[in-house]
Amino acid sequence: MKTQVDINCDLGESYGPFTVGNDSKVMPHITSANIACGYHAGDPNTISKTIKLAKSHNVAIGAHPGLPDLMGFGRREMQVTTEEATNYTIYQVSAIQGFAKAAGVSLQHVKPHGALYNMAAKDEKLSKAIVEASRILKDDLIIFAPPKSALAKASIRTGLRVANEFFADRAYDNDGSLVPRTQTDSIIQEPRKVVERAIRAVREGQVLSVKNETVELGELHTICVHGDTPAAARLVEVLRKGLATANIKVEPVSRFI
Amino acid sequence: MKTQVDINCDLGESYGPFTVGNDSKVMPHITSANIACGYHAGDPNTISKTIKLAKSHNVAIGAHPGLPDLMGFGRREMQVTTEEATNYTIYQVSAIQGFAKAAGVSLQHVKPHGALYNMAAKDEKLSKAIVEASRILKDDLIIFAPPKSALAKASIRTGLRVANEFFADRAYDNDGSLVPRTQTDSIIQEPRKVVERAIRAVREGQVLSVKNETVELGELHTICVHGDTPAAARLVEVLRKGLATANIKVEPVSRFI
Amino acid sequence: MKTQVDINCDLGESYGPFTVGNDSKVMPHITSANIACGYHAGDPNTISKTIKLAKSHNVAIGAHPGLPDLMGFGRREMQVTTEEATNYTIYQVSAIQGFAKAAGVSLQHVKPHGALYNMAAKDEKLSKAIVEASRILKDDLIIFAPPKSALAKASIRTGLRVANEFFADRAYDNDGSLVPRTQTDSIIQEPRKVVERAIRAVREGQVLSVKNETVELGELHTICVHGDTPAAARLVEVLRKGLATANIKVEPVSRFI
Amino acid sequence: MKTQVDINCDLGESYGPFTVGNDSKVMPHITSANIACGYHAGDPNTISKTIKLAKSHNVAIGAHPGLPDLMGFGRREMQVTTEEATNYTIYQVSAIQGFAKAAGVSLQHVKPHGALYNMAAKDEKLSKAIVEASRILKDDLIIFAPPKSALAKASIRTGLRVANEFFADRAYDNDGSLVPRTQTDSIIQEPRKVVERAIRAVREGQVLSVKNETVELGELHTICVHGDTPAAARLVEVLRKGLATANIKVEPVSRFI
Repeated sequence: MKTQVDINCDLGESYGPFTVGNDSKVMPHITSANIACGYHAGDPNTISKTIKLAKSHNVAIGAHPGLPDLMGFGRREMQVTTEEATNYTIYQVSAIQGFAKAAGVSLQHVKPHGALYNMAAKDEKLSKAIVEASRILKDDLIIFAPPKSALAKASIRTGLRVANEFFADRAYDNDGSLVPRTQTDSIIQEPRKVVERAIRAVREGQVLSVKNETVELGELHTICVHGDTPAAARLVEVLRKGLATANIKVEPVSRFI
Repeated sequence: MKTQVDINCDLGESYGPFTVGNDSKVMPHITSANIACGYHAGDPNTISKTIKLAKSHNVAIGAHPGLPDLMGFGRREMQVTTEEATNYTIYQVSAIQGFAKAAGVSLQHVKPHGALYNMAAKDEKLSKAIVEASRILKDDLIIFAPPKSALAKASIRTGLRVANEFFADRAYDNDGSLVPRTQTDSIIQEPRKVVERAIRAVREGQVLSVKNETVELGELHTICVHGDTPAAARLVEVLRKGLATANIKVEPVSRFI
Repeated sequence: MKTQVDINCDLGESYGPFTVGNDSKVMPHITSANIACGYHAGDPNTISKTIKLAKSHNVAIGAHPGLPDLMGFGRREMQVTTEEATNYTIYQVSAIQGFAKAAGVSLQHVKPHGALYNMAAKDEKLSKAIVEASRILKDDLIIFAPPKSALAKASIRTGLRVANEFFADRAYDNDGSLVPRTQTDSIIQEPRKVVERAIRAVREGQVLSVKNETVELGELHTICVHGDTPAAARLVEVLRKGLATANIKVEPVSRFI
Repeated sequence: MKTQVDINCDLGESYGPFTVGNDSKVMPHITSANIACGYHAGDPNTISKTIKLAKSHNVAIGAHPGLPDLMGFGRREMQVTTEEATNYTIYQVSAIQGFAKAAGVSLQHVKPHGALYNMAAKDEKLSKAIVEASRILKDDLIIFAPPKSALAKASIRTGLRVANEFFADRAYDNDGSLVPRTQTDSIIQEPRKVVERAIRAVREGQVLSVKNETVELGELHTICVHGDTPAAARLVEVLRKGLATANIKVEPVSRFI
């Protein structure tokens, strides 16, 4: 039975004066921060500030590369070639590495963002491109991926560790996929329920689907939380405490994977 | 009397299918390539290809960070704070470092582009921001700068080497500044004249101004050439041969500075 | 003594999922909306929604063209030629006209945004370019401008009406210019004070400067309010009521200019 | 038997100093110009110049709206909602209308660009969004579309005229679709062949497929030519003369549709 888990959150998603999220409220309660790299969100000033904020809370940092679609926030699928996927990854991840070096911290992980994450989860070639580009830049990076996905498999084949990710506040379907955001029952808002699901997922690798069936997700290493509303920020705090109460140690995934 | 010099050129300035320049024609004749970093020009695929091309010709590579103004090609002055200058430099230079690492080459230098170069030449604080950000990323980088400029001085104070730059095909004013491109006599097109000027500049640190006065530029380390027209590409070839005939060795600036 | 005034606010400044402002809270209390056009802020979906929202509240609409600097929100001065100013104006204003036509409303005014507004206030050629481009698109447009500015003068010379603008929540210097945002005393937050200043400005064309001197601004037609914070949205409501209590009729500027 | 046809070309695809195409070489030989609108290519200065150039050659102008993907030149498919398609069309087409008004010409047509054209050809809802948005802006616009496509049908249902388009220098498959550019036999370069195909297409509505079968395309109104290489520009000239020799009158499609 696992007794450790990481909590990750997408941060640094402001863009110039377009302020998004509640980074300073969320940061104290998480252990890994996924930093937007400038393609779907995140300008250089924001990247710099967010990495310094993460450092001050001992939060591990990761690059969160996305599709080059600021207007769509990287949430729209786009046709990209494997050459483009390779080079977009190198561009974005190495930019984050520069800020990490400037702040005196080391890059822990890479988590593709939005549509790129969803596309990579299903596409072997795309995953291979992203993972190999990441490994060239730093050969001990951890890749955040859905359990059993093409992205998880590509990481293992490439020799990078995988952190299997659980979405504590998102509903799952029977096949282990997330219920799309467009459906009304896709988000779980009640804090107690979110905590219960997280504990079960960490301990048993299981989640109850939206159709009330037990889904086997396998071993899980990191819980993704959303931090872009005041309620969400509070939810993270509750989750962290709930895990502690259940004797599950919350720490950056690089410490136990 | 100097007997060595570097020849540098701005390359990798295409953007997706917007093809600019004659990179493959120019590359065989230069010794240092300034690679556009995505802000004024240069997309990730172009950066990757250009660095590989440079490597295949043993051309040293540098980052060529610009202002975030694709539509204006980074040639328009913009108000930027020192914080922005710092972070735009980290973002762009570290992105190039990533591609350099992927190609198995090392970053030799940083040369600010266009309006950023002109602004830095005169502005101490801006220069300090750019140079210190560069040094954080790699502490043996060389900064390309106009001789005696604020940028050259900031580099020295920061502990980075400076390559004093000469523009062989641009007319100079009596004060050592370049005649603006908007003037008709700003560009020197006759190859023989360009070669003569380059030889004199390297040997004696002097150039004849547009008003026929001798201008003392001091020691010069690198000659900037333009490669964006077929004629310009041929000019580089002629220049390289002319320097060889004059017993001036042409090699990357990191070998002799 | 004037007994009418317009209240204008910059709206439609979201960009894709980057949500800025409290448009739905502010709209009921203003009479003219300045719609961001996509260069400094505002994507097509946002433009469409904002114009429909304005229509539903009988708020007159104007185009709010800015510099092509999304990352800097159009607040940074940039070198632009008069040709660029002309064409950036045509591009942005006609885009807004299209959405106005689709919504069945007519464009009332043009107000340059941010750095473009500040630059135009002082620069005759730039103002001429912006104003003439606007007139070509619609010859009864009103230009929003600081009283006595180059922009106001260019509008009159071009044959367009000018709405002299007063900033109710910004401190003025003795010469009638705004105290820069970077100074701590630049913003007036106390609602009662803002209302008093607005009433005096409308009735007497005067404002008390930050150095306690009376500044003659001349006739004023529109009061600019900020709507990007919850407090600001409430302030607009208070201002509207305060003007009504003082028997100053608040309506779109095209009705009385 | 048809004896008239229009020749159209994508123009105005430069972006700031990124120069694309040979607009001044191509313009004398065509009758309709598709003007890039700023999303996949085309900045305001370029739009302005291109429309003036078209006017000076009596070439009819059309808007050529694309996906918001400058780096990919609008050639990559992207998920867009119908709301986005509607508003991207309004934004881009009305911007072109503004420049047309400034130049004293009228907008003749709308032709979606690249991936948007290909997506619309197959997708009813997307086509409906694009066509209805166009009609709101100008109710006598002509839509350029592949014969029998979803885009053609949506135009007719919406009450707009359709110009069925033939690609003279592209190979067709048996089902009437274009052979993808990625295949080696997708482009027909021999001028004589291009002219023969164009004449047959105009007269008989037929083309010989890449597999040597006769494909019935139906009535064709406009021939698309490429103008982005010196060879292509000469090809347009040859095509124009070849059609004249065959007694096919070449004129803007609005004159005969």
